[in-house]
Amino acid sequence: MPLTRRQFSKLSALSLGAAHVPWALAGQEPPRIGYCVIGLGRIATHFLEGVKNSQHSKITALVSGHRDKAERIAAQYGVPRESIYSYEEFDRIAQNKAIDAVYVALPNSMHAEYTIRSAKAGKHVLCEKPMAISSAECQQMIDACKTAKVKLMIAYRLHYEPITLKTLEIVRSGRIGPLQAMEAANGFSIKFGEWRYTKALGGGGSLFDVGIYCLNAFRMFAGQEPSGFQGEVATIDRDERFKEVEENVSWLLRFPSGALATGASTYGGDMAGFYRLHGAYGWLQVGTYTYQGQHLQGRYAEEPHRDAKRIDIDETSQEKDPMHFVREADHFSQCILQNTQPNTPGEEGLSDLRCIEAIYKAAGAPLHV
Amino acid sequence: MPLTRRQFSKLSALSLGAAHVPWALAGQEPPRIGYCVIGLGRIATHFLEGVKNSQHSKITALVSGHRDKAERIAAQYGVPRESIYSYEEFDRIAQNKAIDAVYVALPNSMHAEYTIRSAKAGKHVLCEKPMAISSAECQQMIDACKTAKVKLMIAYRLHYEPITLKTLEIVRSGRIGPLQAMEAANGFSIKFGEWRYTKALGGGGSLFDVGIYCLNAFRMFAGQEPSGFQGEVATIDRDERFKEVEENVSWLLRFPSGALATGASTYGGDMAGFYRLHGAYGWLQVGTYTYQGQHLQGRYAEEPHRDAKRIDIDETSQEKDPMHFVREADHFSQCILQNTQPNTPGEEGLSDLRCIEAIYKAAGAPLHV
Repeated sequence: MPLTRRQFSKLSALSLGAAHVPWALAGQEPPRIGYCVIGLGRIATHFLEGVKNSQHSKITALVSGHRDKAERIAAQYGVPRESIYSYEEFDRIAQNKAIDAVYVALPNSMHAEYTIRSAKAGKHVLCEKPMAISSAECQQMIDACKTAKVKLMIAYRLHYEPITLKTLEIVRSGRIGPLQAMEAANGFSIKFGEWRYTKALGGGGSLFDVGIYCLNAFRMFAGQEPSGFQGEVATIDRDERFKEVEENVSWLLRFPSGALATGASTYGGDMAGFYRLHGAYGWLQVGTYTYQGQHLQGRYAEEPHRDAKRIDIDETSQEKDPMHFVREADHFSQCILQNTQPNTPGEEGLSDLRCIEAIYKAAGAPLHV
Repeated sequence: MPLTRRQFSKLSALSLGAAHVPWALAGQEPPRIGYCVIGLGRIATHFLEGVKNSQHSKITALVSGHRDKAERIAAQYGVPRESIYSYEEFDRIAQNKAIDAVYVALPNSMHAEYTIRSAKAGKHVLCEKPMAISSAECQQMIDACKTAKVKLMIAYRLHYEPITLKTLEIVRSGRIGPLQAMEAANGFSIKFGEWRYTKALGGGGSLFDVGIYCLNAFRMFAGQEPSGFQGEVATIDRDERFKEVEENVSWLLRFPSGALATGASTYGGDMAGFYRLHGAYGWLQVGTYTYQGQHLQGRYAEEPHRDAKRIDIDETSQEKDPMHFVREADHFSQCILQNTQPNTPGEEGLSDLRCIEAIYKAAGAPLHV
């Protein structure tokens, strides 16, 4: 039996660790956070499948502009018909006690509005990346969640993916030495008719949607915020997809440590996304940013010094989609249950948006003029 | 029996193709161009081994400041003792009829002087990369060779490497579509005591020595000269290696086609060099810039259009070191024998130096102040 919001709050106040929560001691079924999924596009279907396989999460409501689609999905995931909302009815989620949190899976430009309205409805918010289409919106979202005393997490799924975490552990251990340079790319050939290539919904081109994975990886592995930004935007395919947003963005970042990072993103070709990390004593490469099959290769020092014996690494994740989403949802659920800070809070999304704005500005194509 | 220089000139004037030269028709041993190797460092040993295995080249003289070393190498490669020159005696190579061409394998800052002196001695010049330490020097070298009516080729060995050429053929065929973005990196951890990290001999940091491979690849695959340059230089390891030159250089190029390219080079870590090419219909990656074992991976369209079936490629060169150098030396020898233009003339080296200067300038670290 899931706890009520009041019970969660009480438990949260105690700040108990997962291993010590009362139901675990009593051998009871662990409580589950009830999620309302807002927007039933492609990414939402991965999340729905993820939650179905999770330990601490469940789907309790849906928001969609397409009643038929919503009813079909509701039946599939055991959501009561009365917990299906249209966008017009959205604010009524406040009265639904089965909704503890929302998952915002809308087009980029709608993230801010629905995050803020969800916070006002007293619901915790798990919001897809990019967090919003401007850093100003991100700040408003953070402020709204703080005021409403709800948690805010950005769905950077790779922060919950084991190969990515293993790579981070190797970097933090010092085994590849201080980072010197990083390279990354991500992109795909966007289909005609997608909302992503409209300025109104996507906010910008490929950097917002797919380049952000590279950017976020750079910041994660550097462990600090970049202090220098250079960029270029370009469009080669002169078709209707690129009337409002650019096709390609490449950028060059400088970190205070001295590490340099170069990234590229496209909406005009399958990039087979990757990132590469070069340290003084070794290197690591991870491909790709997809939903499964992360592949880590590299060669690094056995001990953290330049002359140590080198170790070769070649490891592919055996986890299948939607395991990213299982881990992501359960992380946020446990943060709510235990009143802890998510690993990827709103501030993480805000930092990426600040970088995106700085890159576009450096490219001579400022986003907000 | 090799032909005399007069005989070469006569043949050259006829501009005959390799398959139609008289000795081939007469079933004779093909003539060989006699090379004088200037500088007996690491790269020269690869070249010496390459020429030993070549069809149209032979080593006929050596220039070195170390008589003992030169005598040992001369004995190994069948060079007469009287064809060993010190740097003081250098200009006497003009009188040595067995020398048709020189191979300049000196530190970067000495390339211009010895290329120009070789041209004045009437010898064709094969010069290592980087061609020189400034574009002004490159222009002087081109002019000197033109005045002396000798050929000038820059030793961009990967232009004579089969996997690189296969990659170029795929790109030119249109099978990966118009290039959208390219990424590359190359670097190594430089040993204490190397001439490369002095401004006087190296001219600059890692971009001159190893980043130039990435830069040259970008220009080769784009098939045009970049029109936009951004860059950053950085030093993390505060040791004596980086008192005069920087450790890391990263850069961002824009080509007139719209293609963007991001590259990185280091003297502070083993980078496991690679380049990646992203087109509208596929991608290719080649690793590495080493002397053997080039590895091409990718996925591209069977026919040159977006919806064509995709083909996976995974191919590793079986050629061993020094095959690059065999092909490189024989290409230049055939250009001399047949009076044709080398695939990598002085203008190719000049273009790279112009880019290097533009990158350093963009990075706020101009080379020539």
